[in-house]
Amino acid sequence: MSAVAYGRLIGVGTGPGDPDLLTVKAIRALESADVLAYFAKEGRRGNGRAVVDGLLKPGMPELPLYYPVTTEIDKNEDGYKSQITDFYDASAAAVASHLEAGRTVAILSEGDPLFYGSYMHLHVRLASRFAAEVIPGITAMSGCWSMAGLPIVQGDDVLSVLPGTMPEAELVRRLGDTEAAVIMKVGRNLPKIRRALAAAGKLGQAVYVERGTMANAAMVPLAEKADDEAPYFSLVLVAGWKDRP
Amino acid sequence: MSAVAYGRLIGVGTGPGDPDLLTVKAIRALESADVLAYFAKEGRRGNGRAVVDGLLKPGMPELPLYYPVTTEIDKNEDGYKSQITDFYDASAAAVASHLEAGRTVAILSEGDPLFYGSYMHLHVRLASRFAAEVIPGITAMSGCWSMAGLPIVQGDDVLSVLPGTMPEAELVRRLGDTEAAVIMKVGRNLPKIRRALAAAGKLGQAVYVERGTMANAAMVPLAEKADDEAPYFSLVLVAGWKDRP
Ligand SMILES: C[S@@+](CC[C@H](N)C(=O)[O-])C[C@H]1O[C@@H](n2cnc3c(N)ncnc32)[C@H](O)[C@@H]1O
Ligand SMILES: C[S@@+](CC[C@H](N)C(=O)[O-])C[C@H]1O[C@@H](n2cnc3c(N)ncnc32)[C@H](O)[C@@H]1O
Repeated sequence: MSAVAYGRLIGVGTGPGDPDLLTVKAIRALESADVLAYFAKEGRRGNGRAVVDGLLKPGMPELPLYYPVTTEIDKNEDGYKSQITDFYDASAAAVASHLEAGRTVAILSEGDPLFYGSYMHLHVRLASRFAAEVIPGITAMSGCWSMAGLPIVQGDDVLSVLPGTMPEAELVRRLGDTEAAVIMKVGRNLPKIRRALAAAGKLGQAVYVERGTMANAAMVPLAEKADDEAPYFSLVLVAGWKDRP
Repeated sequence: MSAVAYGRLIGVGTGPGDPDLLTVKAIRALESADVLAYFAKEGRRGNGRAVVDGLLKPGMPELPLYYPVTTEIDKNEDGYKSQITDFYDASAAAVASHLEAGRTVAILSEGDPLFYGSYMHLHVRLASRFAAEVIPGITAMSGCWSMAGLPIVQGDDVLSVLPGTMPEAELVRRLGDTEAAVIMKVGRNLPKIRRALAAAGKLGQAVYVERGTMANAAMVPLAEKADDEAPYFSLVLVAGWKDRP
């Protein structure tokens, strides 16, 4: 009787969109993996998968994990929690069957895997049973402030990373209580975010970035943005730096 | 009469310490640069410089920029501000003379250049006169939470990045007002940080990481760390994630 040695789990950060922002370590992980897994919307490839397109071995087996619900559904809606929990359980089981068969599975994660990434839901389910490694990625916010050439924090500045999904009053309060801020998950929350920044007296400092570091990236001071359209891949930067030495 | 075209300024994020965490873009920038500049303490190479050691063209001209004061001096001390301002002015002038002569200068920055990095002080002085590009880097915090396998934020969590230099009462207040926190600039602030975490009821969740991703990296739950010794390259992570779906 011979037992197969388990494969390894690797969470691979793919960065904000520019394939040249992958790390050497991420590229090596893709070369060493037997199976490539990634989250995506049904029928789409997902951005993480698109980023690594030029790097894959021909014929590499892929395991797309299709979300049962869109991220636009209210998290407090009936059924959301159990539906998404079942999905992560089933996804972890699908990955586990490869690991048990001795295959190393690379799971792509946009930006950095453990920073608001779906990968973490598989990590917490699998890392106690299988050897797991997480390869950090350039976060969307780093990609965006670098593209904008905007020093975000220096010295003793506090940086607050705020999901744009939070209630407006809470957003106003937190924007007023920090030197610098990054507002993630903008999308349809943009009108609320704009009002909150104005109320906190920081609209004039805010920079809107969409699809940062991707081929079709765009950025504009938020006060000059004429419409309230924002794609999923967008965020708002408020730099903390006032008195430049 | 022929004018020399100016060289380009490139801020290169070198990541938290592991050379394999450099991006493809950073490596290309090092290959294309004519001069390599970096901040360091007098007589030392600095960590960013050590990280790229295996990547440099033989004979590449180097421009070390030696800090006139250590980062341990109180920022409110007499003379600190003017000394450091003079230093950044002189450093920018030294870089500018290469750019004016048509040489492209890569300036190394540990982690991400615009996230508490000294590079930003050169960027704000030079980016209006010369073509400048910033290449984001893996931040120290991403390197550390990846090494720890610690999901830092999910869903609607707020992340607060807090310099360990802030007053204790302020640290307690901010730790109590956030789901997740990263405390940077630990060093000799560790006893204060420990007290603040205990007061905020979060000492049990805190993970201490030193020299994250470097060859001699170490990490331990802060509550189990027996001494209060912490090197410059250390930080504390408080993950926000309580109810895992
Ligand atoms: C689920 S979070 C994932 C964050 C990612 N793990 C990271 O490290 O940045 C998705 C949010 O990240 C932001 N985002 C991701 N990529 C982006 C990009 N290229 N440009 C602007 N925002 C981006 C958007 O705010 C989006 O709503
Ligand atoms: C001046 S800040 C530079 C931050 C850097 N630009 C970044 O993107 O993370 C220096 C602080 O970063 C943290 N740091 C940098 N590298 C680290 C590492 N490898 N492990 C732990 N902490 C690190 C320490 O808290 C240190 O005091």
